[in-house]
Amino acid sequence: MQPLQNDRLIKALLREPVDVTPVWMMRQAGRYLPEYRKIRKQAGSFMSLCTNPELACEVTLQPVDRFPLDAAILFSDILTIPDAMGLGLYFADGEGPRFKNPVRTSADVKALGNPDPETELRYVMDAIRLIRKELDNRIPLIGFAGSPWTLATYMVEGSSTKTFSYVKRMLYNEPALLHQMLNTVSRSVTAYLNAQISAGAQVVMIFDTWGGVLTPDDYAEFSLRYMQKIVGGLAREQDGQKVPVILFTKGGCQWLEDMADTGADALGIDWSTDLAMARKRVGDRVALQGNLDPATLYADPDIIYGKVGKVLKQYGTGSGHVFNLGHGINPDVNPENVAAMINAVHQISERYHI
Amino acid sequence: MQPLQNDRLIKALLREPVDVTPVWMMRQAGRYLPEYRKIRKQAGSFMSLCTNPELACEVTLQPVDRFPLDAAILFSDILTIPDAMGLGLYFADGEGPRFKNPVRTSADVKALGNPDPETELRYVMDAIRLIRKELDNRIPLIGFAGSPWTLATYMVEGSSTKTFSYVKRMLYNEPALLHQMLNTVSRSVTAYLNAQISAGAQVVMIFDTWGGVLTPDDYAEFSLRYMQKIVGGLAREQDGQKVPVILFTKGGCQWLEDMADTGADALGIDWSTDLAMARKRVGDRVALQGNLDPATLYADPDIIYGKVGKVLKQYGTGSGHVFNLGHGINPDVNPENVAAMINAVHQISERYHI
Repeated sequence: MQPLQNDRLIKALLREPVDVTPVWMMRQAGRYLPEYRKIRKQAGSFMSLCTNPELACEVTLQPVDRFPLDAAILFSDILTIPDAMGLGLYFADGEGPRFKNPVRTSADVKALGNPDPETELRYVMDAIRLIRKELDNRIPLIGFAGSPWTLATYMVEGSSTKTFSYVKRMLYNEPALLHQMLNTVSRSVTAYLNAQISAGAQVVMIFDTWGGVLTPDDYAEFSLRYMQKIVGGLAREQDGQKVPVILFTKGGCQWLEDMADTGADALGIDWSTDLAMARKRVGDRVALQGNLDPATLYADPDIIYGKVGKVLKQYGTGSGHVFNLGHGINPDVNPENVAAMINAVHQISERYHI
Repeated sequence: MQPLQNDRLIKALLREPVDVTPVWMMRQAGRYLPEYRKIRKQAGSFMSLCTNPELACEVTLQPVDRFPLDAAILFSDILTIPDAMGLGLYFADGEGPRFKNPVRTSADVKALGNPDPETELRYVMDAIRLIRKELDNRIPLIGFAGSPWTLATYMVEGSSTKTFSYVKRMLYNEPALLHQMLNTVSRSVTAYLNAQISAGAQVVMIFDTWGGVLTPDDYAEFSLRYMQKIVGGLAREQDGQKVPVILFTKGGCQWLEDMADTGADALGIDWSTDLAMARKRVGDRVALQGNLDPATLYADPDIIYGKVGKVLKQYGTGSGHVFNLGHGINPDVNPENVAAMINAVHQISERYHI
């Protein structure tokens, strides 16, 4: 095994000393990049981009080639698992994801199988193997999956939603049925992430995009509980290297202590919480990833520099911080502002790692 | 002055003893009611309903006539003020509010006037006078306005937004310009709410729908600060009766202590926070309003009964609680489930007021 040329991300996630704070961005391979939009257009649909390992590899590497990022993240979608379960994922133009066959009844839930990652989802594993080869150990590759609750919201609703009417009706009226479904999905997510690790993912992240729409009790019962099961079922070491796990619940900053108790190595933090406060609350149990307001990237480079400095100062001295946005980068951001942010992180953070 | 036949709401907001917990719902006059949809259709557009005092009065009273609610809330929209400032409010079908003339430049901000509530916004005051007459002191009437930050987001963006790109660019690049705008808007909101109180509003509520998209520091500087100014500028007494003020920042439950410091009488709480925890954090400084997950109303009546009981139990014994949803009622809710919720509140809460 050739060692990583840049292992800042792994070290920071494990709270080991680093020279400067590592930085990457959620959705860094995406629409704000003209070179992405070009490939996306050639591919035709979003899913034909995801399911083509060569193209997925190409767009994964685009931001890495352009900016001095400390990590690559697999270009894919959290809905690959429900698609492989036979729900029929498609993207209506400008309307977000949809499923032809939403899961609404007891029979629907019973019919859900557990797709085999190396057959039904082989395109993801092939993409990972290809990206690892192309990266050639320059920086680590992050794999990811959606949380069971987040996947369930899409699977039950059949589309994006503002009201969560179907899935919440199931949660309140038929909690046992929802638990059955979440158990099935959790098994699939665990197998999927372990397959990603075997294929070469050096870090994995669980995205709980919709945990924040739950009450505190329902979050514990229907979202966090299943993420904890997954964390407990993951291969945390591969080829003698530790594989850190990051947990991110958007809007979940009231529950950081409970998230830290899952055994994850790091927590994603959105921009509604001060990092100093978050660090105080979780102590030395986990590393923290975040949390610049994504809208900061609409500002001028000198303003961005100042705001990056503020986030770094809030976290303070020592390792255990991975710089990121508090949510995915917006599609209408100027790539030059991304460069300004990344340079600011590396430049300013030196003083916090002596 | 004839006294109120049912003054539970006022008493609970002032943390005085009540027989049972008062209950009302955000957006209780709205699309989930067939009688509302009928009038809305007759009126043609949403704004022609808002600007017609007779129709606004009629839809305000619809839920009050149907359910044993403890308060009426003026049927109107938070965007009446920017509309009266000349921004040209209109509602594109299925797309939410839009402004013909968004506020983007220094010249735009300078041009903003302060509309006179009894001339440009007289239709609102006439509606309040008419509703008070029709209510005949059965239950109190709640008036309301949007927070300056929330109004500014719409005024700068010109429409609903997911990215807040224009207003956040202004916040980060030209904070002084945004402050100038927020000062102007705050003066208008204060005058508008005081006019509502003079016209007969017995409680006022400030809706900070978008405070939760700010970082903690930006929330303090660009949203809370202006709400505090408004609270300080309100007539807190009318005809010898106290006029309680309720503050509600959606997604702002991490900042409850700071909100309690504004001098407001009560805080609206969304469903992401346990009421027991919220009560512990704010102590006896303010009453709390909330916080049933609006999606609970998709469940069956017996489930609703149990969830109402849970919220009441979380708040616990004593006055200072106004039952409400954690956000506005969804349009696809069955009105029978609303009846179940209201009856459950009155029935179960008796034990907490001995």
